[in-house]
Amino acid sequence: MSGLLTSIDTPADLRRLPREDLRALSDELRTFLVQSVARTGGHFSSNLGTVELTVALHYVFDTPHDRLVWDVGHQTYPHKILTGRRERMHTLRQLGGLSGFPVRSESEYDAFGTAHSSTSISAVLGMAVAAHLKGERRRAIAVIGDGAMTAGMAFEALNNAGVTRLPLLVVLNDNDMSISPPVGALNRYLAQLMSGRFYAAAKQVGKQVLSVAPPLLELAKRLEEHAKGMVVPATLFEKFGFNYIGPIDGHDLDALVPTLENIRRLLDDGAGPQFLHVVTHKGYGYKLAEADPIAYHGPGRFDPAVGLVPPAQPPKPTFSAVFGRWLCDMAERDKRLVGITPAMREGSGMVEFHQRFPDRYHDVGIAEQHAVTFAAGLACEGLKPVVAIYSTFLQRAYDQVIHDVALQNLPVVFALDRAGIVGADGPTHCGAFDIAFLRCVPNVSIACPADEAECYQLLTTAFEQSHPVAVRYPRGAGVGTALPAEPRALPFGRGEVRRQGRGVAILAFGTLLYPALQAGEALGATVANMRWAKPLDTDLLRELASNHEALVTLEEGAVAGGAGAAVLEWLAQEGLLRPTLQLGLPDRFIEHGDPAQLLARLGLDADGIERTVRARLGAYLQARPTLVVVPPAA
Amino acid sequence: MSGLLTSIDTPADLRRLPREDLRALSDELRTFLVQSVARTGGHFSSNLGTVELTVALHYVFDTPHDRLVWDVGHQTYPHKILTGRRERMHTLRQLGGLSGFPVRSESEYDAFGTAHSSTSISAVLGMAVAAHLKGERRRAIAVIGDGAMTAGMAFEALNNAGVTRLPLLVVLNDNDMSISPPVGALNRYLAQLMSGRFYAAAKQVGKQVLSVAPPLLELAKRLEEHAKGMVVPATLFEKFGFNYIGPIDGHDLDALVPTLENIRRLLDDGAGPQFLHVVTHKGYGYKLAEADPIAYHGPGRFDPAVGLVPPAQPPKPTFSAVFGRWLCDMAERDKRLVGITPAMREGSGMVEFHQRFPDRYHDVGIAEQHAVTFAAGLACEGLKPVVAIYSTFLQRAYDQVIHDVALQNLPVVFALDRAGIVGADGPTHCGAFDIAFLRCVPNVSIACPADEAECYQLLTTAFEQSHPVAVRYPRGAGVGTALPAEPRALPFGRGEVRRQGRGVAILAFGTLLYPALQAGEALGATVANMRWAKPLDTDLLRELASNHEALVTLEEGAVAGGAGAAVLEWLAQEGLLRPTLQLGLPDRFIEHGDPAQLLARLGLDADGIERTVRARLGAYLQARPTLVVVPPAA
Repeated sequence: MSGLLTSIDTPADLRRLPREDLRALSDELRTFLVQSVARTGGHFSSNLGTVELTVALHYVFDTPHDRLVWDVGHQTYPHKILTGRRERMHTLRQLGGLSGFPVRSESEYDAFGTAHSSTSISAVLGMAVAAHLKGERRRAIAVIGDGAMTAGMAFEALNNAGVTRLPLLVVLNDNDMSISPPVGALNRYLAQLMSGRFYAAAKQVGKQVLSVAPPLLELAKRLEEHAKGMVVPATLFEKFGFNYIGPIDGHDLDALVPTLENIRRLLDDGAGPQFLHVVTHKGYGYKLAEADPIAYHGPGRFDPAVGLVPPAQPPKPTFSAVFGRWLCDMAERDKRLVGITPAMREGSGMVEFHQRFPDRYHDVGIAEQHAVTFAAGLACEGLKPVVAIYSTFLQRAYDQVIHDVALQNLPVVFALDRAGIVGADGPTHCGAFDIAFLRCVPNVSIACPADEAECYQLLTTAFEQSHPVAVRYPRGAGVGTALPAEPRALPFGRGEVRRQGRGVAILAFGTLLYPALQAGEALGATVANMRWAKPLDTDLLRELASNHEALVTLEEGAVAGGAGAAVLEWLAQEGLLRPTLQLGLPDRFIEHGDPAQLLARLGLDADGIERTVRARLGAYLQARPTLVVVPPAA
Repeated sequence: MSGLLTSIDTPADLRRLPREDLRALSDELRTFLVQSVARTGGHFSSNLGTVELTVALHYVFDTPHDRLVWDVGHQTYPHKILTGRRERMHTLRQLGGLSGFPVRSESEYDAFGTAHSSTSISAVLGMAVAAHLKGERRRAIAVIGDGAMTAGMAFEALNNAGVTRLPLLVVLNDNDMSISPPVGALNRYLAQLMSGRFYAAAKQVGKQVLSVAPPLLELAKRLEEHAKGMVVPATLFEKFGFNYIGPIDGHDLDALVPTLENIRRLLDDGAGPQFLHVVTHKGYGYKLAEADPIAYHGPGRFDPAVGLVPPAQPPKPTFSAVFGRWLCDMAERDKRLVGITPAMREGSGMVEFHQRFPDRYHDVGIAEQHAVTFAAGLACEGLKPVVAIYSTFLQRAYDQVIHDVALQNLPVVFALDRAGIVGADGPTHCGAFDIAFLRCVPNVSIACPADEAECYQLLTTAFEQSHPVAVRYPRGAGVGTALPAEPRALPFGRGEVRRQGRGVAILAFGTLLYPALQAGEALGATVANMRWAKPLDTDLLRELASNHEALVTLEEGAVAGGAGAAVLEWLAQEGLLRPTLQLGLPDRFIEHGDPAQLLARLGLDADGIERTVRARLGAYLQARPTLVVVPPAA
């Protein structure tokens, strides 16, 4: 390493470099990135793709005074490295370490926290309007991928930004890929824009612009307009009021830097919102990742010299894999089943289903709202849609769940992956709220399987219902129970006692059943596997409340309004007075880090459960029941 | 009336009419509509605008076999009249009567229930995919307004539909108006499409097509393509993969019917998704409504010969008006205030603010997601955004509240109008869930003012905070308390005792305080005005729980996970055992009807509260407190 990178502690250092050093710096940055991610794991392909773009943006724009917002934000490792966080990259995504996404509290260069897609244009428009109102001169830049451009929110923002004259730049980082393969008309359209002729012309433009140094403003504008004329006369983005420039090669600093410099002048000149179409390649510069950017999307640790190797012994199947297995098995048996994913084929375990049932597989792109209402339309016609969606992303289709599915009481199954703690991705991806936000919605049921076999069975139960049912399960693997040979349902709305004790009954909703069983053993407590957050198994609940002095509710979800709250509501309604301890996620956002470590910190491992129950309900352990019932009316 | 309309009991009757009768039928339909809405109140301008379009669609397409989905659905009165509901139109929007929106359970012609905007394309795509999978031949038609087209969800659906070859038609009903004046780049673009030359050309096309009867398929296709060429070469909608046709005059049956017939042939011929741009005028055919479509958007009863007349004495100001007053008063005092509405300037009481503070007023169109993240962007820069949004529409920006505002702990005020029962609009618009879905989100506070003065003051309190705060208030007017002379805050997170009684304490969250006070009088109970659903005033709560034998929580919101659940959670956490009765909205969708009548049916008027408290907690009335506290650990 020539040591360029180590001289960059802030973008101001970068801006002092002569332009001809940027290539070498980018190469060093890429090398550092490969070594860093190989050591910590994390997002990889996307970051390799943004090295030059990151260098060029910080070189041309006056960050942090100019606001730079990275959509999704998993491509910001080069940005972090160049903005004073190089030495902390080894802590990435670990408890107490750097976040894998931009976070406002982490750096003044992280103008806006991102992680869920398609928020960046709205955010920079807010920032640009604010600057205008405050009389400040600053530029606002959003960098958004082609996948994120398919979400409706991005269009809502374009629609609003395009009628302003604010100094706002949207950089479309077009790498022809969201996590899953690209879908939809927009992608096809972008491919047209990138097709041979246009792209070649654009490359030419880059060269032309480069030769003009320093270009007069007028000349630059003429060139730019000329370039636009050559490239494509009236793009989609121009219909939204943006000045479209591109496509240009996002790895060619000789195209990027002069084009961005021209755009900076256009912004300063009051030319209004600009749209730069940049073509990059995920995994760029690391051959293995270029060849298989999906595999290298978010790898764990690996040896950069070797690349990813399959583990010596296959890991336990994840809940996502269990869902994928169930989906195929059920699709075989019932041809009404249709599987829907908002751009999460791999993450949701749907690769095999896609291959085997292509007609019944629908990847709608990053479009959660559409995914849910599309499912409602299918259900109206007698089909049985299964929407596979991460808990955190269902938040984006909340109104569609209420207004299109629940109100019409349509039989849609929501397979809610990543419910609860997600680990390294942190608070933006934490599936903490689904029980609370679904429980208040009439007609919706919520199943909380405790392990793999139960997940498989409860998906079957959900599929058999004629109303909406969500089945929530966590990221990663569970205890590893073997799957049933074929889909067979568990009774709807029924739980079970898994350990008979006395004094205290622990009511577990979901996978925390297993630490609860350990704690129950130590405490001599009863442990129930409740299975359903809605409807509650009120027969079981009555039995438990009658035969125990105190209750504990346990869930990997927000305590406020969660399954435990449902128990409290039922007790109150029945007039049963029982000391009840609610265990679950507290009323704060949960930081990133190792999931087991996080659960332990939150007191949700076996030790923590035992400890808290002793501290709070110790007097009732082993006690004989003396039920307090609210007396009837006078 | 010539009696054509009374002969139409189903669209099949309509399809038996000769085409030349359609004009007369439309005139009768419009006359009936004017008389009907004048008698019941309801949506008016929008329905006058869709008379001919409705007649033409049912005439050309084979409803209900072909699926017809009306976006938003408040323009479906002509559709209801023609599909067997003419004789029940006098019951519109009344308890037990017809809904003001399409409802699947009301008629087989209501293929999909709508009310919130921009769902129709997703729904018909689902239906078209289902027909394809089931091997059924049917067409699917979405009718969507230009306002609804600005919501991102519509683009998500276009993006997916445009890559299929399904027999799907999107009719853009372009009346240059959502409820508020139109905004954004898309609207500007549509205006270009409609501009002189294009529109004239399109009219010509209609005539040409008409003269070909019956046109050969080939000829029709050539004509259609020719027409497209003449009109506009590559519209936005074509970039999404749709075949764009139009614009045509949506009141000219001689343009509408032949164009739709041609489109029907294109669909049957496998030409793939079609996009028809129809221009209509809200209020068409009723001069007063044409002149002021906003005033006639949703009038109450009126004399059709006279039109709307101002009431003899001005009505009590609504909560929306109180918000509007506060917004202006606060904007005068603090120039950091920015007001944001997703296309609800009138409904949210922001007309005066718009006039007086145009730079700080942002109508973002029907784009709730963008509205919230745009606000987050503004807040990052030190401004103080106030997002005025109906409770039910905040459901559409739930993820943005969590991910962009709450996680970054940004000081955004959410002015949640229409919280609780909304009356005639019914379940789609009911603001039942906001306390439950916001309460689980860390960093968010929720204020529930009991009356107008308190609403004004709590908005001030909310504005003074440095974190997100929602202030929820119901539709219509409250008890009519006078507003303070200027914005002065109430203490954050503090409630008050409004009536000192004994035995039972009623904890009211919001405007139900007033019936609670009446009930409290009759019961001799204590009544507290809790004011904040989050954070709870735990000092007050402890005092009430300590000094009373039983508690009642009361809110105009879902009981599941609501403010009452927050009380139960706190009692459980503190180990305080108190019989607690939760009063609020039950776990089912609330039908449309008169709000007072609905509240009475739900037992949430003074009588109902008194009755339920006596029945459930009668033994505790006037009782001396004997607090049960969970013993400490053994």
